[in-house]
Amino acid sequence: MGGPEIERLIALLSRLPGYGPRSARRAALTLLRQPQSRLLPLASAMEQAARTVRTCSLCGNLDSRDPCAICTDPGRDQALICVVEGVGDLWALERASVHRGLYHVLGGTLSALGGTGPDDLSTQPLLSRIEAGGVREVILALGATVEGATTTHWLAERLAGFGVTVSRVGQGVPMGGALDVLDDGTLAAALMARRV
Amino acid sequence: MGGPEIERLIALLSRLPGYGPRSARRAALTLLRQPQSRLLPLASAMEQAARTVRTCSLCGNLDSRDPCAICTDPGRDQALICVVEGVGDLWALERASVHRGLYHVLGGTLSALGGTGPDDLSTQPLLSRIEAGGVREVILALGATVEGATTTHWLAERLAGFGVTVSRVGQGVPMGGALDVLDDGTLAAALMARRV
Repeated sequence: MGGPEIERLIALLSRLPGYGPRSARRAALTLLRQPQSRLLPLASAMEQAARTVRTCSLCGNLDSRDPCAICTDPGRDQALICVVEGVGDLWALERASVHRGLYHVLGGTLSALGGTGPDDLSTQPLLSRIEAGGVREVILALGATVEGATTTHWLAERLAGFGVTVSRVGQGVPMGGALDVLDDGTLAAALMARRV
Repeated sequence: MGGPEIERLIALLSRLPGYGPRSARRAALTLLRQPQSRLLPLASAMEQAARTVRTCSLCGNLDSRDPCAICTDPGRDQALICVVEGVGDLWALERASVHRGLYHVLGGTLSALGGTGPDDLSTQPLLSRIEAGGVREVILALGATVEGATTTHWLAERLAGFGVTVSRVGQGVPMGGALDVLDDGTLAAALMARRV
């Protein structure tokens, strides 16, 4: 079916998130139809990203420079650190332009089922950053899942005694959300977080 | 958000079939997390495919050699040509191992809405192959759509007078298909195609 090159391309494409054998074949055909304008640019972008993108040694963000553009931005509040589970969460907050401080990527959440323990998370680098001084507040922005809540609770205890304010992101009704489609947990959280 | 390399990777990934900005970001993160085992192999497979894969000058198939492996296979019936719309259809027939002859990729179907006329299809190469002699039968294996049926009808007329048998793929109830979920057109075709 077109030689080993096509077979290999389809096999690797089928491992992309959300892709299977069928969609991988479709993607391979689309790309092979325009090798110069589609296939080669994507291959070169991947090669270049693999060569340049590194994990920021300060916060765990992905960037082509280390420390990353966020850590070295003098316009950001260096005393405010937002702790997120992964780089995808950091990207989401950056797209929303709602956080003007720094980040710390934890690299996961505590999960007994997933086998993620305290040693698998990037906690020590966060503590070192706080111990180095200059940090006023740490915002724990983990997901409202069982694992996220567990990790938030555990991390808040670890950060106690460091002399920094530890806050958590608010929970409740999401913007544009109708109450009758929300789950019981969200409704309970929204009622608990009511303001006067 | 991670520098121009990541932005470019996401932008190009989001143009993959079935992908949008959100899934492209997810794929970029997955790939960037394993640059050596995921990102670079995919980049190299793409680069290699772009460099080696060509359109077969005889049948229009995609292969790393020209003429393609199917056209040069001495074990296949050289007198039987199956006409398909695209390389994806050829792949589907090859996966099913149901055709032991050669192929001809038409490169599309006649479509007034899509602006595809007779000159946009690879008809002349097919006629040349038939004129060169040795062809016994041409199977028209186009989709059972309005465009497919139009093209089948038009192509059958063009092939009349060349002294070859022109056949069409059968229409009816697909394997494993229950009658009560089929559309009226398929049911009508299945009744018309009944056998005793």
